[in-house]
Amino acid sequence: MDYNKRSAVSTVPNTGPLKVGFIGLSYLKGWALKTHYPAILQLSSQFQITALFNPQLSEALATIQALKLQNATAFPTLEAFAASSNVDMIVVSIQSAQHYSVLIPLIEHTKANPNLKYLFVEWAMACSVEEAEQIYAAAAKRGLQTIISLQGRKSPYVIRAKELVSEGYIGDINSIEIAGNGGWYGYERSVKNPNFIYEMGQGTDIVTNTFGHTIDILQYITGSYFGRINSMIFNNIPQQELIDENGARIGQKVKKSVPDHLLFQGTLLRGNVPISCSIKGGKPTKKFTKNLVIDIHGTKGDLKLEGDAGFAEISNLVLYYCGIKGNDPATSSTNLASLPEPSNSYDSAKEIMEVYHLRNYNAVLGNIFKLYESIADFHYNTRKIPNLPAQFIMQGFEVEGFPTLMDALILHRLIDNVYRSHLIGSTLNVSNISRP
Amino acid sequence: MDYNKRSAVSTVPNTGPLKVGFIGLSYLKGWALKTHYPAILQLSSQFQITALFNPQLSEALATIQALKLQNATAFPTLEAFAASSNVDMIVVSIQSAQHYSVLIPLIEHTKANPNLKYLFVEWAMACSVEEAEQIYAAAAKRGLQTIISLQGRKSPYVIRAKELVSEGYIGDINSIEIAGNGGWYGYERSVKNPNFIYEMGQGTDIVTNTFGHTIDILQYITGSYFGRINSMIFNNIPQQELIDENGARIGQKVKKSVPDHLLFQGTLLRGNVPISCSIKGGKPTKKFTKNLVIDIHGTKGDLKLEGDAGFAEISNLVLYYCGIKGNDPATSSTNLASLPEPSNSYDSAKEIMEVYHLRNYNAVLGNIFKLYESIADFHYNTRKIPNLPAQFIMQGFEVEGFPTLMDALILHRLIDNVYRSHLIGSTLNVSNISRP
Repeated sequence: MDYNKRSAVSTVPNTGPLKVGFIGLSYLKGWALKTHYPAILQLSSQFQITALFNPQLSEALATIQALKLQNATAFPTLEAFAASSNVDMIVVSIQSAQHYSVLIPLIEHTKANPNLKYLFVEWAMACSVEEAEQIYAAAAKRGLQTIISLQGRKSPYVIRAKELVSEGYIGDINSIEIAGNGGWYGYERSVKNPNFIYEMGQGTDIVTNTFGHTIDILQYITGSYFGRINSMIFNNIPQQELIDENGARIGQKVKKSVPDHLLFQGTLLRGNVPISCSIKGGKPTKKFTKNLVIDIHGTKGDLKLEGDAGFAEISNLVLYYCGIKGNDPATSSTNLASLPEPSNSYDSAKEIMEVYHLRNYNAVLGNIFKLYESIADFHYNTRKIPNLPAQFIMQGFEVEGFPTLMDALILHRLIDNVYRSHLIGSTLNVSNISRP
Repeated sequence: MDYNKRSAVSTVPNTGPLKVGFIGLSYLKGWALKTHYPAILQLSSQFQITALFNPQLSEALATIQALKLQNATAFPTLEAFAASSNVDMIVVSIQSAQHYSVLIPLIEHTKANPNLKYLFVEWAMACSVEEAEQIYAAAAKRGLQTIISLQGRKSPYVIRAKELVSEGYIGDINSIEIAGNGGWYGYERSVKNPNFIYEMGQGTDIVTNTFGHTIDILQYITGSYFGRINSMIFNNIPQQELIDENGARIGQKVKKSVPDHLLFQGTLLRGNVPISCSIKGGKPTKKFTKNLVIDIHGTKGDLKLEGDAGFAEISNLVLYYCGIKGNDPATSSTNLASLPEPSNSYDSAKEIMEVYHLRNYNAVLGNIFKLYESIADFHYNTRKIPNLPAQFIMQGFEVEGFPTLMDALILHRLIDNVYRSHLIGSTLNVSNISRP
């Protein structure tokens, strides 16, 4: 249980906190208020909000007052916000549909701020792979250290699963099954939900959103990208019934253009492992299974991740493990390979089990909090990571660090191929999409 | 619970039993001895073995003696066996690899027997779709009523599941997930098992065998063939470790050319339902799931079929149901369709549950026994089926009757497309393969 050890970031750093300029924080409501804001509050020696930009200046001013952001300035224009030298890190937490139109000019304007080092963007970063490529290129050219909120990688369950896999507890992975539910995309739609999330091209569809986060987690745990993939995408529910706060139908139907089901199958590059994945919209009865189930089978054991909601990155999960610890692939000497194998491949007497669950873990906030912790670990190097680079392009499958816009771009390329496989009816080779 | 009501076949028919000529029954060992023979014994008023053919005449003679088949004659040649007018029904229970070379001349020679009415062939009927087409055509031209041992259709769990679906207990099916294990095709091979089952082209591979039976059951329950399909097939275990009777490895490896994993996904023609399916070789630890799981989700409820072995057609299963009975699609008047829907689509207060399990059901014998029962029901019409045809070409998705060589041929066409989809890397339209 090393991977999940507490970050040393609680140590007060010698230098002052990173100055954060925030786009998309409002005292009224929203994701940033529920996650980024309390995470920054809890890491007040490491992060301090010094600048705000909202399209309505009045909302930024009211947010500063309501949240008592005494060190923060509200900027009237994106250009002025971007140019402020009192900002070390910009966080962009707005709808994906606006990412491209905000990020491209933002990055350009930040050339006036010599102190800016970090750019933290909310997944999906863009609504298409073309936009994603441009945003990535602009940030790379600007020399910023980027962070993407693929925060599922920071889930303690994901990290523990990754540790068990890395240390040989399930042997060689030989098959994986994933079944999940994306609540939004079913037969009913809450009247409270905005319409845009049900429209294609907003970065909020079941493939970009539910599948994107889930498959990123899977690749991260297994340490492998995909070789071949095939997908089928369905919009079997072109109209949804509107429901009120009590879940009662109000007798009105609304159109839905995003898909409600994704069938995906493919092979992991590492080990040619077959993966079967079915992501379904809505909250069906599903009495006999959880809304998220990831089964990872290996030659020496099994892992099961289960959650009540299909959104793995914001759900509190349960991790089940059963198996026999094999040789640690990282530490086993090559000499050991020539030793004779035991007469039986699976000795039940050596079997161990583990159920890993943090009863009160708030995954919505917790995973974002841990992402901020990782940024602080990197900036202050409080964990004394050896050979820490001044900047790192991508996290890939490392335990240290955080996912970057490059990781997000690779995921966008996969999602693009998922749609393409469906459209042209082909199995596709995606083994080259992880090249920078 | 109408579909599973006891067959009226226990009534002694007015006429004598059907005279059965058997190819492949041996007193020494084998599938026929464990299944067909006791089934015929239990239905002795309906079936009587009158002829035997084995390549070794001595084995046929010894079988007659050992099993006390007092009415049976052992024939020295296939031609003489086929021509015997003391046979109403021929059962062919031999290795699939021999089906073509035996069935084609057999059917030709039976032209000398005017009394022959039935031909009962073991699945897989052939080792390729080309052979299957020829065998089907020969039997059809000969005018025989054929039966194929896709006996999973006779499993009481399958029939109960079909009944629940047909009567609206899960509403409209909207997604299906299948995960199964085919024990033979894993890391280890028992020294007792013959080598041919691990070689391609024998009709014993994981696609033809495990997947074939399972997907036939699924189509039968849902009442639908497939629209589009995609598959990926793996031979990740090209060598197996030989193990002795105690499961210990004896330190010898043998080649395996059949696949050890099938990924399959597709859409049901009826309702464009997404289906995800992963069939894996071997007996992995799989502590957190059963070796066979079929999840059928609908708008009003869920069905789950679980088994300890991946071979659904010979396993005792458990059927779980939870949901709300909707309108019976078969009986609901079209006028009802215009009535307003209730304000909530799923009223938990009306939810019902059912766990269906026959503690002592011997599925290996039982499903074959029920197939013989169905043949007797047809022949003697003991159930007084209205409008019973003199011959029927295929069972399709009917409750009455039994699967025929036409049903087997359609399944072979699907299997052929599964291999083709893998080979050419395409999603295929298979909506026309069920045409006679």
